[in-house]
This record gives sequence, structure tokens and C-alpha cells, in this order.
Amino acid sequence: MSHYSPLIEELIDALRVLQGVGRKSAQRMAFNLLQHKREGALALSAALEKAVGHIGHCQHCRCLTEQAVCHLCASEKRDKTTLCVVESPADVIAFEQAGGYNGQYFVLMGHLSPIDGIGPEDIGIDRLIERAQSLQISELILATNPTVEGEATAYYITEQLRQMGVKVSRIAHGVPLGGELEYVDSGTLAHALSGRRVVE
Amino acid sequence: MSHYSPLIEELIDALRVLQGVGRKSAQRMAFNLLQHKREGALALSAALEKAVGHIGHCQHCRCLTEQAVCHLCASEKRDKTTLCVVESPADVIAFEQAGGYNGQYFVLMGHLSPIDGIGPEDIGIDRLIERAQSLQISELILATNPTVEGEATAYYITEQLRQMGVKVSRIAHGVPLGGELEYVDSGTLAHALSGRRVVE
Ligand SMILES: [Zn+2]
Ligand SMILES: [Zn+2]
Repeated sequence: MSHYSPLIEELIDALRVLQGVGRKSAQRMAFNLLQHKREGALALSAALEKAVGHIGHCQHCRCLTEQAVCHLCASEKRDKTTLCVVESPADVIAFEQAGGYNGQYFVLMGHLSPIDGIGPEDIGIDRLIERAQSLQISELILATNPTVEGEATAYYITEQLRQMGVKVSRIAHGVPLGGELEYVDSGTLAHALSGRRVVE
Repeated sequence: MSHYSPLIEELIDALRVLQGVGRKSAQRMAFNLLQHKREGALALSAALEKAVGHIGHCQHCRCLTEQAVCHLCASEKRDKTTLCVVESPADVIAFEQAGGYNGQYFVLMGHLSPIDGIGPEDIGIDRLIERAQSLQISELILATNPTVEGEATAYYITEQLRQMGVKVSRIAHGVPLGGELEYVDSGTLAHALSGRRVVE
């Protein structure tokens, strides 16, 4: 039996939809909101409703936005000849925060995963090809995650795009800058070793 | 400059009202909701609005509830002669989950803190005295936290209630059951030592 009143129980339950929030944290959040942050709770309620109601996918890059075309795709200042393929909208943000890239993006919103029934059409490969063609890109940069699924997805896209005569590149993987070798996992280290380059 | 669309930015910002959620987690939560859990997000929005709109304080114990009198205060099965004073609604839940107590509660919704301008009226001491009188309790159990503020609050309440001739007790503090001595902090250990009892 629950020790909470029905509405508190409902709130605790609803909070668990949030990533990383278990029952204990949800309880703490619920009490904290009701005791000290009622206005903030109402603002969050409104923001959730508005976001779900209005945010969809950019028709060019598939990232999340409330506009038909996101501000990155709409920008006149960005290079239209390179297209960087990432798995999630958060990856776009990571690149933008890092700086140094000024081209277009395409967000797969996932990766190929035959086990989960996620095929090429689910991650928008046809739209990626359309986009690459309509932009007449000179280079496609693969920035899927260095996981088994990410690599398989990168391989699949490479096969498709090569047929179109597009240059395809993969971002470098290896020891992170500032990382100490002894703390780097062995898979990364092996990858960094096999990907070594001659110093000229 | 933000790399998010205005509505996503607003959602990330709003999520930070939740206890323990920083900007990074809020970003992850926002993307996760919009990509995979839109129905859950709407349910959370509704639960927040309903909770803020309907949940207030029990008129007897001050705990959070959407009823005028909470189910614990309304229960005919609970002992009316003991009153346990706690700082927060979560403490009531902790006692109920632990079991072994079947009396009444009073929730201070905080503790005395002269520095923050929180005095006796803010934590409902007048209502606590009224409640103790109307129930004609035989014992008041102090279960405020073993912190400086919790102890000061317990001391203040003791002074008030003793004048009324009510027996006042404080829950025991010491080494937790199952806790290994070497991992217990020294304050707790000193407290456990000074609170030792003769084995009979
Ligand atoms: Zn876009
Ligand atoms: Zn009550």
C-alpha cells in the first residue's frame, strides 16, 4: 500500500518518465516541488505541454525544432557542401559547442539495429540521400558513435553514398586530448594504435 | 548563444526546477522526452498541474495531501495519545515504511533557522501546541533531524511542551543497525558512546 495521497503518488509516478530518475529521486523531487517550488512546477508543466505540442523534426536535417526548417539549416552563413551525419540531436549540440564545423547536419535519430527492427528507412537513409543530392555535397562526414551499431550504420551509409560518387569520411577516434594513456580503455587504445599516422 | 530552438531551451530551463537536475541532465531529459516519451511528457505535465492545483496541507498534521485531513489523521485505527514531530512529509513516509509507530504526526515543514528568518510561527509551533492540547496526548516524540537546526528545534519544542505537562521524548541516535563501526562518522560514534545504556 502506498503511503502517499493519490495525487502525490500520481506525480511521483509521472516524474519517473524522466531519464535517470528512479522512485527515490522522484519522491524527493515531488516533495521539493510541492513544498518550495510550486511556480516552477507550473512552468515545467506548461513547458512540457508546449514542447510536445509544437516541437517536431526539421524537414532538412531531422533534428528537433518547432520550425519547419531549423536555424542551422536555414542559416545563409553555413557551408552547403559538407554534410555531417550524427545519431542524435544532442550530437549536433556537441559539435556546435566544440566549434570548428560550419557545414550541414543530418540527424539519424538512432542507428541501424536489426535486432530491434530498426532498418534504413527508420533512420531516414532515403532522406539522407535526397538531402545529399539536393545539396550537391562534396563530402559527407560520418560522426555516428564508435559502437558496434554506430560503426555498422556508418558502413551502410558509406556503401550507399559511394555509389553516388560522394567522398565519405569518418571522424577520428582515439585517445582523448588531455587523457592519460593509463586511464584509457584498451579498445580505444588499440584503435588509436591501429589508426596511427606517420609524423612528417 | 544557445544552440537550441527557443521551445527546447525553455523546456531545458524548466526541467532545472527539479531537485538534483543540472543543465547537462536537463538537456538529456529534454531530448529523451521529445524523441521517445511524448506521451509520458504530457502525463507529467498534467500531473504537475493537478498536484499544484489540489495538494495543500492537512489541517491537523500539516503534511501534504489533497484532502482537508490526510488519511493518517483521519484513520480511526491509529493511537491518538502520541504525537511524533518531524521536519518534512518525507519523514512521515520513512516512519510509515519502517513500521512500528501507530500514533499521530505533526510536520513542521522545516526547522527553526534564525539566520534564514524562520521562527516558531513559520514551522507552526502554535498549531502543534493546539493539536497536542486537543488530542490530550500523553507523549510527544521529537524526530527532528540530528543536525544543529533540528536539535535547536527539538529543544525549543521541549521547552514549550513541558510547560503543558506533556512527556517529551527524543528518538535515539547512534550507530545504524548493520553499520560497521569503522565506517560510522566520528560525530555519530561519539553520540552513540555518550548515549550508552547499562546492559541489565
Ligand atoms: Zn535542420
Ligand atoms: Zn494529517
